[in-house]
Amino acid sequence: MYVIIVYDIQVERVNKVKGFLRTQLNWIQNSVFEGEVTPSELKYIKDNLTKIMNKNKDSVIIYTLRTEKALKRDVMGIEKAPIDGIL
Amino acid sequence: MYVIIVYDIQVERVNKVKGFLRTQLNWIQNSVFEGEVTPSELKYIKDNLTKIMNKNKDSVIIYTLRTEKALKRDVMGIEKAPIDGIL
Repeated sequence: MYVIIVYDIQVERVNKVKGFLRTQLNWIQNSVFEGEVTPSELKYIKDNLTKIMNKNKDSVIIYTLRTEKALKRDVMGIEKAPIDGIL
Repeated sequence: MYVIIVYDIQVERVNKVKGFLRTQLNWIQNSVFEGEVTPSELKYIKDNLTKIMNKNKDSVIIYTLRTEKALKRDVMGIEKAPIDGIL
């Protein structure tokens, strides 16, 4: 399955979240990661995010699709992280 | 078609972008909007974003799907904008 993760994390925790997600997914934009994951990898990601984030102050949205092919991505302006160039 | 728009806009332009997108889509999280649009509505959105944003400093990602049904959305932590409650 393919996931897009968008987060809004307070500054004191944001580097920890970003650092963790970098180990699992591709960085796309300031607070956006994407990648192909298995169900167990997604569970691992969610478990770790739950540990790192403050659920009363932070917000994470996980979009899940069956396949990346269901998705078209247009980038306007600066492209911070070309999807093929990051890992 | 269904779109998810995620932006990373510098502070001096962010309210203008947010204000415009609020007229077109549903606010989901700090810098995330979603909604069902026609192709001409999407063109209108892109044209206006092009006018508002600085393409050398800002970044907008537009994810397009054929239907919202292709997508599963999980929100962890605070849910800033329940999708049925905003418009």
